[in-house]
Amino acid sequence: MFDYRRTHLCHELNASHIGKEVTLSGWVHRRRDHGGLIFIDLRDRFGLTQLIFDPDISLESHEQASKLRSEWVISIKGKVRPRAEGMTNPKLATGEIEIEVLEFQILSEAKTPPFSIADETTETHEDTRLKYRYLDMRKGKITNNLVLRHKVMQLTREYLDRHRFVEVSTPILARSTPEGARDYLVPSRVYPGNFYALPQSPQIFKQLMMLGGMDRYFQIAPCFRDEDLRSDRQPEFTQVDLEMSFGKPEDLIHLMEGWMEVLFKQCLDTKVARPFPTMSYHDCIENYGTDRPDLRFEMPLVRIDDIATRSDFSVFKSQVELEGVVKAICVKKGADTSRKEIERYTEFVSQFGPKGLAWMKMQEGKLTSNIVKFFSDELQQELIKRLDVEEGDLILFAAEAEAAVNQALDHLRRLIAKERNLIDPNKLSFVWVEDFPLFEWDPKEGRIQSVHHLFTAPVPEDIPLLDQDPLKVRSNAYDLVLNGSELGGGSQRIHDYKLQEKIFKTLNLSSDEVKTKFGFFIEALKYGTPPHLGIAFGLDRILMILSKTENIRDVIAFPKTQRASDLMMQCPSSVHPSQLDELKVKAEPKEITWI
Amino acid sequence: MFDYRRTHLCHELNASHIGKEVTLSGWVHRRRDHGGLIFIDLRDRFGLTQLIFDPDISLESHEQASKLRSEWVISIKGKVRPRAEGMTNPKLATGEIEIEVLEFQILSEAKTPPFSIADETTETHEDTRLKYRYLDMRKGKITNNLVLRHKVMQLTREYLDRHRFVEVSTPILARSTPEGARDYLVPSRVYPGNFYALPQSPQIFKQLMMLGGMDRYFQIAPCFRDEDLRSDRQPEFTQVDLEMSFGKPEDLIHLMEGWMEVLFKQCLDTKVARPFPTMSYHDCIENYGTDRPDLRFEMPLVRIDDIATRSDFSVFKSQVELEGVVKAICVKKGADTSRKEIERYTEFVSQFGPKGLAWMKMQEGKLTSNIVKFFSDELQQELIKRLDVEEGDLILFAAEAEAAVNQALDHLRRLIAKERNLIDPNKLSFVWVEDFPLFEWDPKEGRIQSVHHLFTAPVPEDIPLLDQDPLKVRSNAYDLVLNGSELGGGSQRIHDYKLQEKIFKTLNLSSDEVKTKFGFFIEALKYGTPPHLGIAFGLDRILMILSKTENIRDVIAFPKTQRASDLMMQCPSSVHPSQLDELKVKAEPKEITWI
Repeated sequence: MFDYRRTHLCHELNASHIGKEVTLSGWVHRRRDHGGLIFIDLRDRFGLTQLIFDPDISLESHEQASKLRSEWVISIKGKVRPRAEGMTNPKLATGEIEIEVLEFQILSEAKTPPFSIADETTETHEDTRLKYRYLDMRKGKITNNLVLRHKVMQLTREYLDRHRFVEVSTPILARSTPEGARDYLVPSRVYPGNFYALPQSPQIFKQLMMLGGMDRYFQIAPCFRDEDLRSDRQPEFTQVDLEMSFGKPEDLIHLMEGWMEVLFKQCLDTKVARPFPTMSYHDCIENYGTDRPDLRFEMPLVRIDDIATRSDFSVFKSQVELEGVVKAICVKKGADTSRKEIERYTEFVSQFGPKGLAWMKMQEGKLTSNIVKFFSDELQQELIKRLDVEEGDLILFAAEAEAAVNQALDHLRRLIAKERNLIDPNKLSFVWVEDFPLFEWDPKEGRIQSVHHLFTAPVPEDIPLLDQDPLKVRSNAYDLVLNGSELGGGSQRIHDYKLQEKIFKTLNLSSDEVKTKFGFFIEALKYGTPPHLGIAFGLDRILMILSKTENIRDVIAFPKTQRASDLMMQCPSSVHPSQLDELKVKAEPKEITWI
Repeated sequence: MFDYRRTHLCHELNASHIGKEVTLSGWVHRRRDHGGLIFIDLRDRFGLTQLIFDPDISLESHEQASKLRSEWVISIKGKVRPRAEGMTNPKLATGEIEIEVLEFQILSEAKTPPFSIADETTETHEDTRLKYRYLDMRKGKITNNLVLRHKVMQLTREYLDRHRFVEVSTPILARSTPEGARDYLVPSRVYPGNFYALPQSPQIFKQLMMLGGMDRYFQIAPCFRDEDLRSDRQPEFTQVDLEMSFGKPEDLIHLMEGWMEVLFKQCLDTKVARPFPTMSYHDCIENYGTDRPDLRFEMPLVRIDDIATRSDFSVFKSQVELEGVVKAICVKKGADTSRKEIERYTEFVSQFGPKGLAWMKMQEGKLTSNIVKFFSDELQQELIKRLDVEEGDLILFAAEAEAAVNQALDHLRRLIAKERNLIDPNKLSFVWVEDFPLFEWDPKEGRIQSVHHLFTAPVPEDIPLLDQDPLKVRSNAYDLVLNGSELGGGSQRIHDYKLQEKIFKTLNLSSDEVKTKFGFFIEALKYGTPPHLGIAFGLDRILMILSKTENIRDVIAFPKTQRASDLMMQCPSSVHPSQLDELKVKAEPKEITWI
């Protein structure tokens, strides 16, 4: 048998190679028998090359080739020749040529796969694709995303290395962190009854490295959260995590914008406009109802509490009296919206609280709707002016508690923009969101909590408010939002242990609690801590945007389902009782039924 | 207060900057008060810069500076000036200059650390250094190793990227593998009674990617083993892991030699000689007693069974009759070794089995020792010839079961080489070890086992031996050894599922066992598997060699102790009972006492 090592890959050969003898290896993508000849499209991850088995050239090869089926792995020796006139395929890199096979060998036969690799039209259920991930990879989409992911990681590392950041791996067997999401635990065998936790982020480690003088650190870090999964989450996810000493937020913001510029230029050949705009948390919520505004289109949320109060529309008036709000959006050229569609919108927003949507249309120079009569001409003019209403526009109103109105109109705004094609898919609208509150009230727990994390520094001029009105304290934090997705977030950290202790106190953590949970960290802060700051980005999210997919599983090699299971490996799984005995851990085994 | 952001780092300023106004920030490394002036060495991870506080320039700064203590973090504004004549320090990058401080601020005070950062002579107990890792980092050694580690990772990624390898992250929440070392387990909350395992290596994932057509993959992969730790092991360690399709071992060997060339050139400015020599497993064991021979020096193990048999020395003769062996090493110029030293060697080897060491010295043209009389002149001449004995040399003999002799003389050979300074510390002796046996007999389990792993391909011509004499089958595997350390190992994999099933059968795995443990993988192999091969390197080991340390903890940012604990974080730790309840796992809590 001849040596199966390749002289070329399946996308490389073109007219310039005609006459050459080559060795190719790969998978049988398609077979066609035509006019006594056998045509095979040979595939690797780089492309396709057409092979011809001609009985006049090798009777034996032709005969053997008739056995070949899809997905068999073969190796061939052959000669590059031009395709017959009219048979060239300009869509294919190798479309000018074909290979006259002189000799070939079967490297591996294949059963018929559960779904066709060559068929580009039939959709396969995702569970099947996950169970046979290695076959799904052959279809190209996942593999291309992984190659893109590799490229993004390489570009990121080169960029950060160029800016003096040092990549350091931090432990995966770490200590259970008491705040935040639920930890994955790992029983210790050496210390029975004790546990490691998989890190939710390298936060404490990276701050310790700043204390250690590392100056600038980064890591493309695996992180873990044992949460019930939303469709865009995974139990293990990847953060581009960094931290620097002796800097200020504007330095980090400048650096990160440069990074984004590189990624979008190199991956999508798109130039991003710099510097990115900034928006305060307050303005985001007020004008878009969310701290992740999608700024690719207009249609802001407009508050009309004052107009509502002066109207005769009791639904609006009573909401304002109950300390709710009335906000509206103006849908440009939306007056063609049918009653049925408005009913659908109403149903859509009801999941966020508001029980109804009011509407007005601007038609033939005046507002029309069943509620117009409650608004004087003067109030109508005010509405038109404030919402910038023009002929043919639609106004949609929601009145409820503020959070519900914001959530409802944020979602409605995005739904309408999508349905009415108001979004330019090539547009990149970056925005830095700043001036977050440091704390928020958690009604479930009945106490105040950190909005970001415990180590986030307050804005210096707000420090006196910590005692008087902690919910008014702004944090020195910054989130980067792109097209309505949060790409990353970070902050200046507290480098003064007294301030850190004050924050713990504001959060009502007892000194015992603080000592158990953060004792070593507070101690560490006392030995000379440089001012430092950092940020973390969701790599998976960045990949989803770059590869234009809304499914996080499309950008991960071996993802888990929403039930945190691996359908291919059938994992989690039962283990041998002796394994649990060694760990001195008891658990009732229970079989999982797999697809 | 002025802006603490730096114009320069602490290693940057030299004579060319004289007269410039600069801002520096960092740690107070040392303070000296001298002639009414205060001198501070300001430190960051890049270097030291001398600051001068002169009351004639700023009385206030001078007064404030008298408060400064070691490890306080400060920021200064000042003017670069030349050091006074005779005060320059050529050992320091900034040794020509000093900074006349105009203004300064304290960014962070510091308690007296548990050990001095500036003191380079006093050794601190490693446990203390681990507890205060962030302080130990400031001493420079660990930080420099981490910067080197970063460089090695960058070089590795660039090199492999250039050779078309794609970096893909594989899951850390994986399936428990039944073979190999003990797994770390992670209880599943969604499927109580079921567990994930942290991967011991990405072996199955990388093979699946080859089935998926990824062609060439690599990863700098975190791996986990819950083993009782030898001093050079960690529960989590890092592998440079790669796999390629349609290649043969010589391709991979060539690629890996190129990688080593880059690392040693870029990190140590050392040119490695290529190609690396190869040695069969058999020759390694025969001539060096180990499959990880240190070839920086000679002193091979020489078998003298035949000579022993013909001698009158019953200790040797009886060992050969008992199917043991007699081997010897010749210590050049070793005839000066005292009886007491030989006794020490004897004690040293006894831990590996041999109860004694025999010896002879070549002095004044003839062999002398208490056993020479048992060897005829002719046998003595044979010994001299075979061992290449010259005037002043020492021969040391061990007679025992073969494995014990090999182990004893391997260790003795290395001990003597070290003690007698036979090793050139700058020499790099790479060797590829090949032709390993595919299986070995495991006397503890009473069955044969894979030497590497289950997926290693046998040498093709040895396949017929699988039925007849499996222990004679050689594997298509290759280990890279450098200076007596195994850097990495890999193999051609089995790509034929029938052969893979045969291997399972040879290993006496029942078909039920195979189905439960590897069912999905055997199934995967049936859908068209390319020939593929790979290798994995221990990154920590490579770093230990490049940074010339014998302590694996010196090359890891936050290492664990030999009891797999983190002294800084105090981890593993007890967790809240509700955390275990949610996992439906029971464990008896037990407090750990920390240093």
